[in-house]
Amino acid sequence: MFSHNVTYVFRPGGVALPDIPVVHRWPEWTLRGISQVVFQNNWLTGLIILGAIFYNSWVYGVACLVGTVTSTVTAVLLKADRNMVKAGLFGFNGALLGIGLNAFMSQNFTNGELPSWRLYLYIVLGAAFTAVVFSALLTAFRPFDIPALTAPFVIAAWLFIFAVVRFAHLPPGPLLTPGLPSPVQGAGDQYTWTTWYQGIGKGVGEIFFQDNWIIGFLIVLGILVNSRISAGMALLGSVLALATAIVLGAPESMVRGGLFGFNAALTAIALGGFFYVLTVRGFLYTIFGILVTTWVWAAISVALSPIGMPAFTSAFVIVTLLMLFAKGFFPGLVPVATEDATT
Amino acid sequence: MFSHNVTYVFRPGGVALPDIPVVHRWPEWTLRGISQVVFQNNWLTGLIILGAIFYNSWVYGVACLVGTVTSTVTAVLLKADRNMVKAGLFGFNGALLGIGLNAFMSQNFTNGELPSWRLYLYIVLGAAFTAVVFSALLTAFRPFDIPALTAPFVIAAWLFIFAVVRFAHLPPGPLLTPGLPSPVQGAGDQYTWTTWYQGIGKGVGEIFFQDNWIIGFLIVLGILVNSRISAGMALLGSVLALATAIVLGAPESMVRGGLFGFNAALTAIALGGFFYVLTVRGFLYTIFGILVTTWVWAAISVALSPIGMPAFTSAFVIVTLLMLFAKGFFPGLVPVATEDATT
Amino acid sequence: MFSHNVTYVFRPGGVALPDIPVVHRWPEWTLRGISQVVFQNNWLTGLIILGAIFYNSWVYGVACLVGTVTSTVTAVLLKADRNMVKAGLFGFNGALLGIGLNAFMSQNFTNGELPSWRLYLYIVLGAAFTAVVFSALLTAFRPFDIPALTAPFVIAAWLFIFAVVRFAHLPPGPLLTPGLPSPVQGAGDQYTWTTWYQGIGKGVGEIFFQDNWIIGFLIVLGILVNSRISAGMALLGSVLALATAIVLGAPESMVRGGLFGFNAALTAIALGGFFYVLTVRGFLYTIFGILVTTWVWAAISVALSPIGMPAFTSAFVIVTLLMLFAKGFFPGLVPVATEDATT
Repeated sequence: MFSHNVTYVFRPGGVALPDIPVVHRWPEWTLRGISQVVFQNNWLTGLIILGAIFYNSWVYGVACLVGTVTSTVTAVLLKADRNMVKAGLFGFNGALLGIGLNAFMSQNFTNGELPSWRLYLYIVLGAAFTAVVFSALLTAFRPFDIPALTAPFVIAAWLFIFAVVRFAHLPPGPLLTPGLPSPVQGAGDQYTWTTWYQGIGKGVGEIFFQDNWIIGFLIVLGILVNSRISAGMALLGSVLALATAIVLGAPESMVRGGLFGFNAALTAIALGGFFYVLTVRGFLYTIFGILVTTWVWAAISVALSPIGMPAFTSAFVIVTLLMLFAKGFFPGLVPVATEDATT
Repeated sequence: MFSHNVTYVFRPGGVALPDIPVVHRWPEWTLRGISQVVFQNNWLTGLIILGAIFYNSWVYGVACLVGTVTSTVTAVLLKADRNMVKAGLFGFNGALLGIGLNAFMSQNFTNGELPSWRLYLYIVLGAAFTAVVFSALLTAFRPFDIPALTAPFVIAAWLFIFAVVRFAHLPPGPLLTPGLPSPVQGAGDQYTWTTWYQGIGKGVGEIFFQDNWIIGFLIVLGILVNSRISAGMALLGSVLALATAIVLGAPESMVRGGLFGFNAALTAIALGGFFYVLTVRGFLYTIFGILVTTWVWAAISVALSPIGMPAFTSAFVIVTLLMLFAKGFFPGLVPVATEDATT
Repeated sequence: MFSHNVTYVFRPGGVALPDIPVVHRWPEWTLRGISQVVFQNNWLTGLIILGAIFYNSWVYGVACLVGTVTSTVTAVLLKADRNMVKAGLFGFNGALLGIGLNAFMSQNFTNGELPSWRLYLYIVLGAAFTAVVFSALLTAFRPFDIPALTAPFVIAAWLFIFAVVRFAHLPPGPLLTPGLPSPVQGAGDQYTWTTWYQGIGKGVGEIFFQDNWIIGFLIVLGILVNSRISAGMALLGSVLALATAIVLGAPESMVRGGLFGFNAALTAIALGGFFYVLTVRGFLYTIFGILVTTWVWAAISVALSPIGMPAFTSAFVIVTLLMLFAKGFFPGLVPVATEDATT
C-alpha cells in the first residue's frame, strides 16, 4: 500500500538491540526517528547525532527529543502502522520542528534558550501536527510512490511560526525580521579558508539548526556508521553548494554559516543512491539537483523576506519532489528498488 | 463517482417543501446553498442565516443572494449534476464570495455599501468562477474521497481581490492596506467580559463576514434547527479559539472582532461529528484542529500582510484538508459513513 | 499512458520535411518546440516566430534557441519518449525560460543584453530544469488527462529568478524592484488609439517577452500558418483583455505594453477550440476564461510586488488548469478528442 515507506522499515538498520518489552523500545524508536532526518534507519546514527546536538546545546537536545517523542506518540495514539512507527518515520519531522521553532524563537540562535511554557506547548502541538501532515502527504503521494520527505516539518513549521507575530506571549527571535529584499552589493572578494571549512561543516549542521561546524562533521560521522554513500553525498552536497554560492557571489557570512548547504546536502543524500541508483546519469542528475537546490534555497528565503520568515528545508523538498516525480518520463534514471533503499 | 458529495444530497434536510415546478425550486436551492456554508443541507437553516444577514445589512443580504444564485446558475448552464445543484453544493462558495468581496471593497466593512456596477459585475463573475474551482477541486480530490470545503471561495476571492490594486475603477476598502508585519507589543491585559461575549458571537458571525455578535448567535440558532452537534461545535470552536488567542496574548480588538474564531468554528463543525464520528479520539482530534486553526489563521494573515489582503477561510480549509487527508493512516479515527453525514 | 500529450505528436504539423538523418532533425525539433508555446506543432510556425524574435533582438533569438535546445537535450539524455521530443514538447518551456530570464536580467528589457557567462550558465540550467518540472507535472496530472501548459516554465523561472537578489554576480534588471503595492489613482482617461493597436500587438508579443507590437502581429501570422482558430483566438484574447483592463481603469502604460493581454491570449487559444470544442457554451466559457485571466495576471503581479518579481504566464496556467480540471463535472462542455486537437 505505502510500499516505499515500508522499505525504510524492514532494513536491519545497524546493530540489533536485544529483544525487550515494547515500552523499552521507545528509546530505539526515538533514535531511529532522529536518524531518519538524514534518511538513515539506524539508532546508532540517531544517538551520535543527538549526542552532537547535546554537545552544542542541551536546550536543542531536549527540543529534539521532545519533538521526536511527541510526533511519534501522536501517531501511536491514532493507531498508525506500528512498523512505520518503529522505523522512526513519524518522528523525524517532529525532531526538526522541535529544534527549529525553539531556535528561531530564541534570542540566541546558536545556543538557544529554554522556551516559555506557552512556547513549549506550542512546539509540542507543532510536533504533533507534523504527524498529521505526514499522513496527509503520504496519502496524496501514494499513487505515485513518492515519499513526503521533510515537507511535513516545513508545512507545520511555517503554519505555526508565521503566526507568532500576532501573539504578545510568543515573542519572535531576532532573525525573524521582515524587510523588502535588496540585491547583494559587491560581495565575492572576502572568502577565506575559514569560509570553506566552517561553511562545509555548518552546511551539514544546519540540517539540525546547529550553527557549529564541528557538529556538522559529527553528523557526517553518524551517517557514516550506517551508509558510506549517504555520508559522502552529504559532504558532496555541502561542498558543491558552498562552491556554487561563492562562484555566484553570495554574502560571505551566509556562505560561512552553511545556509546554502543544508538543503543541498539533503538533496544529495536523497537523489544520490537513496532514491536513484548511482549510475553515471544518476550521479549527474544528483549534481544537477545539488546546484538547483542551492539557489532555490535563496529563492525561497527571498520570497519569505517581506514577512521575515525562514525557508527551512523547503528548497530540498521542492527540488527533490520534482526530481522524483519526473522519474516516470526519464527511463535513463534507475529508481532504487524499495527493498534495497539506503544500503 | 463523487460519492462524498452526493451524501449531502440525499439527506432529508429539514422540513420537506411541497412538490412544485422546477423554476419554483430556485428559492429552496438558494437557501440550501447558504446553509451549506456551515455544512447543513436545510433550507430553513439557510433562511434563518439569510434573515440574520439582512437584519444586519440589506446590502450584504443582497450580495449573499446574488453570489449564491450566480454560482448555481453557472453550474446549471454547464449542465452540472442536478442533485448536487439541488443540495446547494454549487451555491455556498458563491454566497461567501458575494458578501466577502462586497465587504472588503466597502468603505464601511460592518454595514457595507452597494457596489458600483463594475464591482457588481466583478462579484458576479467571481461567484461564477467559484463553480469552476469547485468542480476542479472535486476532480482533483475525488481519488481520495475528500471534499473541497470552502477552498473554491478562498481561491476565487484571492484571485479576484488581489487584482483590484491595479484598477482605478475598483477602489479597495480601508482594510486592504499593505504593510510589513510587526510583532504585537504588550497585549494581554485589557480583555474584558465584552471581549468574550462579542468575540464568541462574532467568531461565528464572521463566517459570513458579519461584524455583529448578535448575528453570530442567530447563525448558531439556524444551525441548531438542523443539527445540535454542528451548533454545539460552532460554539465550541469559537469559544476555544477565543480562549487560545487570549492565552497567547493576541490584540484585544482582533479577539473581540471574532477574527481568531470564524475559521476555528468551521473546523470544529467539519471535524466534530461531520466528517469524523465523535468518539473520544475524534473529539480530541477536533479540539486539536480548533487550536491549530486559530493560529494558522494568524499565520496566513501575516503572510498576506505585505499585500494587505485577507485570509478569508483559508486556515479552516488548510487545516481541515490536512486532517481529513490523514485519515487513511490513522485507524484510530472513524470517518463518518457518507450516507450518515451531518445527522 | 500520457495519451493527451502524444496527441500533439502524431498530427502532421505543417509541411513535411524530407526524410533525413536524426542529427539533422534537430532544427525541426527545435522549431516545433518554439511553436508549442502557442499550442502549435508546426516547424514553419516556429520558424516565423523565431524570425520575428530575431528581427526584434538577436540576443533574445539566441536565448530562445539556447533554451529550447537545452531543455530538449536534457530530455534526450534522460531517454525521454522520442515522439514527445520530436513534437517539441520538451522544448517550449525551455524557450520561454531562455528569453524570460535573459529579459528580466537585462538593463534594457525591450532589446536585451547578452548575459554574462555566469548568467548564461544559470539560464542553461534553468532550461534544463524545465524538462524535469515538465515530467513531474505530467506525472501528477496524468490521472486526470490534463496537460502541464507552461507551468514548468513558470515554476522553474520563479525558483531561479527569485534567488538572484542573493548573488552579487547575477545583478537583477531594473524591472525587478520590490515595493509594497499601492492602488492606482485616477487612471482611465488617457487611453488613445495608440493604446489599442500597440496593446493588442504587444499582448501577443509579450508571450515571448517581445515589447514590440509588430512582432505580436507576426506571431499571429505564424500561428495562422497552422490554425485559423488559434490565430483568431490569440487576437480575441489580446483584444478582450485590453478592453477589460480599460473598462476597469488600468494604468495606460501597462495596457499599451500588452501586460494584461499575453496571459489572456494563451488562455483563449487553449480553451477556444484546442482543449474544448467551440460550441456556444465552449465559446462563452472561453470568453469567461479570458476575462478572469486578465485580472488574475494583475492579482499575481500584486502578490509578487513585495519581492519585485514578475508573474510570467502563471495567470494563464492557473485559470486554464482550473477550467480544464472542471470538465468532469460540466457535461455542457465538449473536450476535444485527443487525436483531433489543434486542427
